[in-house]
Amino acid sequence: MKIGILTSGGDCPGLNAVIRGVVLKGTTNYNIEFVGIRDGWRGVVDGDFFPLTRHEVKGLSKVGGTILGTSRTNPYEGPRGGAENIAKTLYGHRIDGIIAIGGEGTLAAADRLSNDGINVLGVPKTIDNDLRATDYSFGFDTAVNIATDAMDRLRTTGDSHQRCMVAEVMGRHVGWIALHAGIAAGAHVICIPEVPMSIDEVCELVNKAHSRGRAPLVVVSEGFKLTGMEEAFSDKGLDAFNRPRLGGIGEVLAPEIERRTGIETRATVLGHIQRGGSPSAFDRVLATRLGLHAADAVVDGAWGQMVALRGTDIVRVPFAEALGELNTVPQYRFEEAAALFG
Amino acid sequence: MKIGILTSGGDCPGLNAVIRGVVLKGTTNYNIEFVGIRDGWRGVVDGDFFPLTRHEVKGLSKVGGTILGTSRTNPYEGPRGGAENIAKTLYGHRIDGIIAIGGEGTLAAADRLSNDGINVLGVPKTIDNDLRATDYSFGFDTAVNIATDAMDRLRTTGDSHQRCMVAEVMGRHVGWIALHAGIAAGAHVICIPEVPMSIDEVCELVNKAHSRGRAPLVVVSEGFKLTGMEEAFSDKGLDAFNRPRLGGIGEVLAPEIERRTGIETRATVLGHIQRGGSPSAFDRVLATRLGLHAADAVVDGAWGQMVALRGTDIVRVPFAEALGELNTVPQYRFEEAAALFG
Amino acid sequence: MKIGILTSGGDCPGLNAVIRGVVLKGTTNYNIEFVGIRDGWRGVVDGDFFPLTRHEVKGLSKVGGTILGTSRTNPYEGPRGGAENIAKTLYGHRIDGIIAIGGEGTLAAADRLSNDGINVLGVPKTIDNDLRATDYSFGFDTAVNIATDAMDRLRTTGDSHQRCMVAEVMGRHVGWIALHAGIAAGAHVICIPEVPMSIDEVCELVNKAHSRGRAPLVVVSEGFKLTGMEEAFSDKGLDAFNRPRLGGIGEVLAPEIERRTGIETRATVLGHIQRGGSPSAFDRVLATRLGLHAADAVVDGAWGQMVALRGTDIVRVPFAEALGELNTVPQYRFEEAAALFG
Amino acid sequence: MKIGILTSGGDCPGLNAVIRGVVLKGTTNYNIEFVGIRDGWRGVVDGDFFPLTRHEVKGLSKVGGTILGTSRTNPYEGPRGGAENIAKTLYGHRIDGIIAIGGEGTLAAADRLSNDGINVLGVPKTIDNDLRATDYSFGFDTAVNIATDAMDRLRTTGDSHQRCMVAEVMGRHVGWIALHAGIAAGAHVICIPEVPMSIDEVCELVNKAHSRGRAPLVVVSEGFKLTGMEEAFSDKGLDAFNRPRLGGIGEVLAPEIERRTGIETRATVLGHIQRGGSPSAFDRVLATRLGLHAADAVVDGAWGQMVALRGTDIVRVPFAEALGELNTVPQYRFEEAAALFG
Repeated sequence: MKIGILTSGGDCPGLNAVIRGVVLKGTTNYNIEFVGIRDGWRGVVDGDFFPLTRHEVKGLSKVGGTILGTSRTNPYEGPRGGAENIAKTLYGHRIDGIIAIGGEGTLAAADRLSNDGINVLGVPKTIDNDLRATDYSFGFDTAVNIATDAMDRLRTTGDSHQRCMVAEVMGRHVGWIALHAGIAAGAHVICIPEVPMSIDEVCELVNKAHSRGRAPLVVVSEGFKLTGMEEAFSDKGLDAFNRPRLGGIGEVLAPEIERRTGIETRATVLGHIQRGGSPSAFDRVLATRLGLHAADAVVDGAWGQMVALRGTDIVRVPFAEALGELNTVPQYRFEEAAALFG
Repeated sequence: MKIGILTSGGDCPGLNAVIRGVVLKGTTNYNIEFVGIRDGWRGVVDGDFFPLTRHEVKGLSKVGGTILGTSRTNPYEGPRGGAENIAKTLYGHRIDGIIAIGGEGTLAAADRLSNDGINVLGVPKTIDNDLRATDYSFGFDTAVNIATDAMDRLRTTGDSHQRCMVAEVMGRHVGWIALHAGIAAGAHVICIPEVPMSIDEVCELVNKAHSRGRAPLVVVSEGFKLTGMEEAFSDKGLDAFNRPRLGGIGEVLAPEIERRTGIETRATVLGHIQRGGSPSAFDRVLATRLGLHAADAVVDGAWGQMVALRGTDIVRVPFAEALGELNTVPQYRFEEAAALFG
Repeated sequence: MKIGILTSGGDCPGLNAVIRGVVLKGTTNYNIEFVGIRDGWRGVVDGDFFPLTRHEVKGLSKVGGTILGTSRTNPYEGPRGGAENIAKTLYGHRIDGIIAIGGEGTLAAADRLSNDGINVLGVPKTIDNDLRATDYSFGFDTAVNIATDAMDRLRTTGDSHQRCMVAEVMGRHVGWIALHAGIAAGAHVICIPEVPMSIDEVCELVNKAHSRGRAPLVVVSEGFKLTGMEEAFSDKGLDAFNRPRLGGIGEVLAPEIERRTGIETRATVLGHIQRGGSPSAFDRVLATRLGLHAADAVVDGAWGQMVALRGTDIVRVPFAEALGELNTVPQYRFEEAAALFG
Repeated sequence: MKIGILTSGGDCPGLNAVIRGVVLKGTTNYNIEFVGIRDGWRGVVDGDFFPLTRHEVKGLSKVGGTILGTSRTNPYEGPRGGAENIAKTLYGHRIDGIIAIGGEGTLAAADRLSNDGINVLGVPKTIDNDLRATDYSFGFDTAVNIATDAMDRLRTTGDSHQRCMVAEVMGRHVGWIALHAGIAAGAHVICIPEVPMSIDEVCELVNKAHSRGRAPLVVVSEGFKLTGMEEAFSDKGLDAFNRPRLGGIGEVLAPEIERRTGIETRATVLGHIQRGGSPSAFDRVLATRLGLHAADAVVDGAWGQMVALRGTDIVRVPFAEALGELNTVPQYRFEEAAALFG
């Protein structure tokens, strides 16, 4: 059997650990031959493959990024795209199936290709933890650790200067990173996309922490929807999420908090450092196990499914289960954390 | 309502985060009054209490160890021990119940006290992850991160000198730390208490890695049972686990691997650094959530139970469910990892 | 003898270690009584003092920020400012002298106060390493470690996506953080205030790295002067350093690199995380030693001087030596690093 | 010109950064051809060389260990050893000179070979910082950071259990790692080879810290000479340093402290984790600069010398200056730190 592996979408700590897990289990236990597919679906469409042996995946569990490269190409677009062309390309290279490691877009494409007769197996990848059907996805724990460490640092500056510190973290549609890093770092305000808040509510929490003698620490997901600022933003142009088009939400929030509360306030946008570098042990274990089980699933012919974490077990779920609705932060999880705000 | 909190047994990253979670939720939402109990059950027996307010738990989510102190005192021993005396002591201080954060011994004592009429609620604590009834316990993730980081370091020395490196990690009865750190760091041999191996088997795996050009990396739980060495050890005196009484198992294993394989081999015993210091973000979140839910459970009068993690939820389980049998590494989890040994 | 200690200006990892070093040495060896001065010169002017004993500085060597608080107050301003008023305030509290831990502004004020008859001793503090007269200042090593770690992370994202990654680091007037973090992380372009470069030169280096198959990594000091962009910026408003007023230089550079080279480019502004949190071991040792020697200097009556690092020794230098000219990156140090750009 | 590079003796974080610095500068600026020499002097003697291009050193500044391998071979031993044979071997491969990265033994051999007419240039390498003629050597800062981090962790366990924690760190002949990590972590006792102490003196300091309510933290170099224990050790066999032959000094010290003070005491031997893994930013910068300057020195024909750090400058010194006497901790540096013990 000959199997291609691809990584698609934004990079994420643990991608290489998945690849290593698949290849070690597949070659040693099942005698599968693997090829790496370059730059996600782009490599499928272009037939851009290279041999992937035990040697290539040596020492990869700790290495961030992806040795396969990645892109946001849609496999149904372009002159060589579409299920029929792809089937020909794979047949031409005698590739029996594809393991696609990616997020919602990738898995949706994988689902469609699967329905169109291509053998595809999925491994869920989302640093935001926004996929249903898996309790956690690799990369998320690393991102939360990085954000927590950064906020621990911001806190000492806040305390020294009696400032309010605002940290903007990843999370365009879901607030898991902000929620977990906020709990871990002891934030006084956690602003997530699932729970729109007005600038008044934010400032009230800031003032509450300040009145207890604390330097307020605010964590905000990039996709947080701030309400009550429409007028103020009207001259700057608003984007689809009702946010000003210039700068991130953290950079909008900070001066407004300062203006309204009188507390000196500074914003830091963590940005790309949250998704790079060596994965945490949790993510290495999760990613490796997903890879090992993906090799099993290939041998079982479990095409059209993806491997996922449930409790402490790795299970298989149909693509459809993972798609459609995002894994948002439920209201009770936000309220649970809100008890910490005081 | 007035509630005492104690931490008992070996320290563990996250203890302070639990305490903070309990106190923040309990004081803010439920108006509970808390007292800290010094040094575990010792403080209960001696009536050694002090007020524990919001102020005392400030900034604690990131602080290792326990501000309450800890001991291995058994509450049923000594002249002031036993349920009857303890009931009097608690009544004398108007303490309505105890939140006991501890491992198997602590929870067994809590169960017995609960059966004897004392209001006790449990929070599971085990750095080895050896308690059933909770998917993971706080401190474990931190320990695995520390062990993984140490093994990442050992690997570069192994590679530079073409040596076999042996890392001994915690785990007297269960091998979870060795298993997870071994997977994360890419160990070539994982030796855990649940799976006794002969020195021949260990050396075979070492030779296998070496023959592929790798510097063999071996991780061994302190409670690993090495077989086939009885004769060699007979002059050194054996302990109950069939191990020589001098030094840890890592220090026994390393020279024997070197003698049999001819590969220069060095052991490192990680020891206490695995249980100290600032908790990982995962452990801070888990510990904080357990604390928040413990405050809820107190209000609900859920005495005789403990809070626990199941999947992504915090649930309540009777003490009995957590006791009796250890949460050992199941055979299939070991075999899963063994695919990585090649 | 009774001595006041103050920290002034931006916070910096190691401030607390200096305070601890002064207090431990001064109380134990010399029987000095210490008072903490709140919020820098503000506390001197306002007479805002509190007792600072051995107990208060317990465990501080690893704690970021400053327990004394800090501000940017000028001691010569305000109705209670000026040498005469300050002398009265100090005399009123029987304070014999001040240890002022701060940067150029602080040391200049200290120098003037010293000339006006106030006993002041200085400890140099600059996270940018911009003070002459000390080989290194505490905080700098920590900042370089944080920036290096961040750039290590950015690199994996760059490699996975074949992107150019731009990291903006601290350094308004001098480029030491960019230089050292750039060398440490293997940057392909290092842009510092001391060496203005045109956008063409930057893009040439980016292209050079790209043509060797590398994902270009660019580090840029916040005070870097980009030339050849005047026209493009003219509609955005320029600040004193010829930079657009909106966003940092990193956010200006990235889109321009992308536009000119065609290589997808992303900027990350590290911001405040570089100056917070626990100091590196190097900074803890340096800060502690400066504190210990400051206590000695007080006993020797070495007012009007500051303690400083020369090679491996702590020495005393007059304020004047540290002032006037900044410790800029010399041309030969930049050229030395430029050999790495290829 | 064709130059060979070797690494010799124990591995050390920064070796790869030196190699990268040499190769980048040498190939780009001077058009030198490099070969890697496998396993130190062993590879010189055996003629075990391989091409070392820009490509091979890609990304190496952050990678621990040495890609060249290392050994403790003496180039004057064995049938193919000695200056005459080596001259022939080098001539046979048209190698014009050797850059030897190593410690005292390596540099002594390099000096002798140099005197015997072989072109050798040295780069000092000692994780213990025991070489004169360089202010600091790379690897030392990383080791101190690792030891400090470990001691930060041990402290929380000590505090929670009111235990004395003993950390044994590297330093067979000099105590720099213990001194710096001890200062950084706030140790209450620092035991170094340069300052023999009796068990009574150690226990007095332990008791002093304990009486102030602190959990005593003791750091001890592996080469520390404990006096006053001769009798107790007489039945165990003593080594040349008057220490028992079984276990490290930390494991000897801990039970004796516990026996004499009555304070529960635990030892941790940090061992090999101190010398592996990714170098700190300081070490990357230092190692890279040494490499860059070594390339310059080769071009200048500065054979018989080594590059070294003085203050902030890289200078050249004759081998002889670095040899003979070790860079021990001077008495005044120990006394400086002793002020912290209280």
